[in-house]
Amino acid sequence: MKTYTDLNTPARLLLGAGPSTVHPRVLKAMSHPLVGHLDPQFLVVMNEVQELLRYVFETENQLTIPVSGTGSASMEASICNFIEPGDEIIIGVNGYFSERLCDMAERYGGVVRRLDKPWGDVFSREEIEAELKKKPAKILALVHAETSTGAMQPIDGMGELAHQYGALFLIDCVTSLGGVPVKMDERGVDIAYSGTQKCLSCPPGLGPLSIGERAREVLHHRKSKVKNWYLDLTLVEHYWGDTRTYHHTAPISMNFGLREALRLVQEEGLENRFRRHQENAEILWAGLEEIGITPLVPLAHRLPSLTTVRVPEGVNEAEIRKQLLQEYNIEIAGGLGALAGKVWRIGLMGYSSRKENICTLLGALRNLLS
Amino acid sequence: MKTYTDLNTPARLLLGAGPSTVHPRVLKAMSHPLVGHLDPQFLVVMNEVQELLRYVFETENQLTIPVSGTGSASMEASICNFIEPGDEIIIGVNGYFSERLCDMAERYGGVVRRLDKPWGDVFSREEIEAELKKKPAKILALVHAETSTGAMQPIDGMGELAHQYGALFLIDCVTSLGGVPVKMDERGVDIAYSGTQKCLSCPPGLGPLSIGERAREVLHHRKSKVKNWYLDLTLVEHYWGDTRTYHHTAPISMNFGLREALRLVQEEGLENRFRRHQENAEILWAGLEEIGITPLVPLAHRLPSLTTVRVPEGVNEAEIRKQLLQEYNIEIAGGLGALAGKVWRIGLMGYSSRKENICTLLGALRNLLS
Repeated sequence: MKTYTDLNTPARLLLGAGPSTVHPRVLKAMSHPLVGHLDPQFLVVMNEVQELLRYVFETENQLTIPVSGTGSASMEASICNFIEPGDEIIIGVNGYFSERLCDMAERYGGVVRRLDKPWGDVFSREEIEAELKKKPAKILALVHAETSTGAMQPIDGMGELAHQYGALFLIDCVTSLGGVPVKMDERGVDIAYSGTQKCLSCPPGLGPLSIGERAREVLHHRKSKVKNWYLDLTLVEHYWGDTRTYHHTAPISMNFGLREALRLVQEEGLENRFRRHQENAEILWAGLEEIGITPLVPLAHRLPSLTTVRVPEGVNEAEIRKQLLQEYNIEIAGGLGALAGKVWRIGLMGYSSRKENICTLLGALRNLLS
Repeated sequence: MKTYTDLNTPARLLLGAGPSTVHPRVLKAMSHPLVGHLDPQFLVVMNEVQELLRYVFETENQLTIPVSGTGSASMEASICNFIEPGDEIIIGVNGYFSERLCDMAERYGGVVRRLDKPWGDVFSREEIEAELKKKPAKILALVHAETSTGAMQPIDGMGELAHQYGALFLIDCVTSLGGVPVKMDERGVDIAYSGTQKCLSCPPGLGPLSIGERAREVLHHRKSKVKNWYLDLTLVEHYWGDTRTYHHTAPISMNFGLREALRLVQEEGLENRFRRHQENAEILWAGLEEIGITPLVPLAHRLPSLTTVRVPEGVNEAEIRKQLLQEYNIEIAGGLGALAGKVWRIGLMGYSSRKENICTLLGALRNLLS
């Protein structure tokens, strides 16, 4: 019979589109001995995770939870609980993950009204309002931080706008939460989903999700049962609510890890953390420019947590990534979908966003491209 | 602002219905530094997890994967990929989790043909065949190990029977996999799902799932798209298949942990592990009898991994569990659904199934009940 060695994966510097490098304190928390999922002491941990998630989302929303799956599960929870057959949803489509939102909405019988733009672009208030004006929609969905393009969609005032036309405002903040201000309540966001493995620097496996009261009302007045049992918030809200009624067994160790990752965010302070992400991104951009590598997205809406750059002409995109990984143990990401083969995606997220990491990457790129 | 301490949950002995106590080697693997989810070295880990899962399922099924959610997500994957609107499914309903199967099947438009029996009972071959004979069904679903009752459904020959009538054979082996023989291929099981936190003694967060070729053919000939994006095996099979096409980000640390948990199973050997579970269960049963506690399920179909016992008359069920937890740091479980308040559920699963743990529990129960 085949035998298996101890885990011996190499020590990688994770500067791709996520996962980011995990802080040693979070790794330690992941190895904390288990307690049961209904143990009073685990209920304390659940409460703390929820409080800390509210802190990073900047929300008072009671229904703020880590979905027991990755960011994509949290994305699906945002759709399947609010879209019933025939419901109209306006989706700003300017990258891979907004395409995914369309796919999911259609699976639940939603009527998708696409607003298309080239990948890397963002939507103006006027463009959104023009579509909202046409006829009522149940949801307006925008990707705050497009992980496939590195574009940051301005969302100030968008919640108010959506509400003016009777729509809920939903955002993808997978690559912004904990690295870039999300300010859920201030911006009138009704539904926001994220992942743990980006700017929170926790391993992948949970999907932070926050649901505002306006959206919760809609949930409670559905005409039909949610089609998805595992992500059915009318059930899940009781496990993560006052009664703590068993629904499924929460991923206990993942919640231990997330608690520690969020505690690190709180210790640093959100404002300091946002500033660190912005300052380090600027150092990276300047350094990349020096070696002739230009970002895809204009400065005005460039995401600090994830930078997409054009692969210089004549350079073999995949080969350089392979060399970075094999020779330098550095991971960066290639392009997805329409951008495959054309771009690299460089993440400076959470614990990965450190000056020393930028030196390491720029040094390696200099060597490989010279 | 509220501050949060280091994790300081008490050291619990987990003898409930799962999670079971996690082996220190698995906890260590959980804290292994991350590599990316598409890193060639992570692809090696994925392959190894799949090989080891095939070993515990005793199957050659290529599509054998850890679903990126808990056992309930794996259960839902077993339903949503194979049930299309109008499809008939026969479900043996004799406990909490078979009820859940009915709920899920209905959400996906399935026509559920319930076979009802009192909780704790199991189905005979004749009872199953009588229902199969009535008219064709797409799936026959049975719960091999009912976590709510502690009953073990005999499944020898059931696969052949289902196939004879043109149905796929689906089993829940959440509380049997790795502790009681599942023998998927030998028994003609087409779809089997499980969880990691029971007899595999890995933290909760992944749902082992194995799909046979017959079921895979059915999947590939669906008339409609799978309604659930996250669990859509027509997409997931490519990420866990030859092309390793990105679908979602696998929970990397959880897979590190599962690999180590499975490695421990392999080192012990399946047969030795089954014997250990059986022998320790018998020691527990004898010890319980000595203090006047009787199992709910007759010996003939009593599960070794989870024993359900009647709470002795005049004893406050919840109070004793509370004292066990608070005074002795021992977790056992109460009853679910129809059995709430009437039974305790005592798990000897995976790393929890050790003689010393039985002594600890029996000693504590003796003290509390005297």
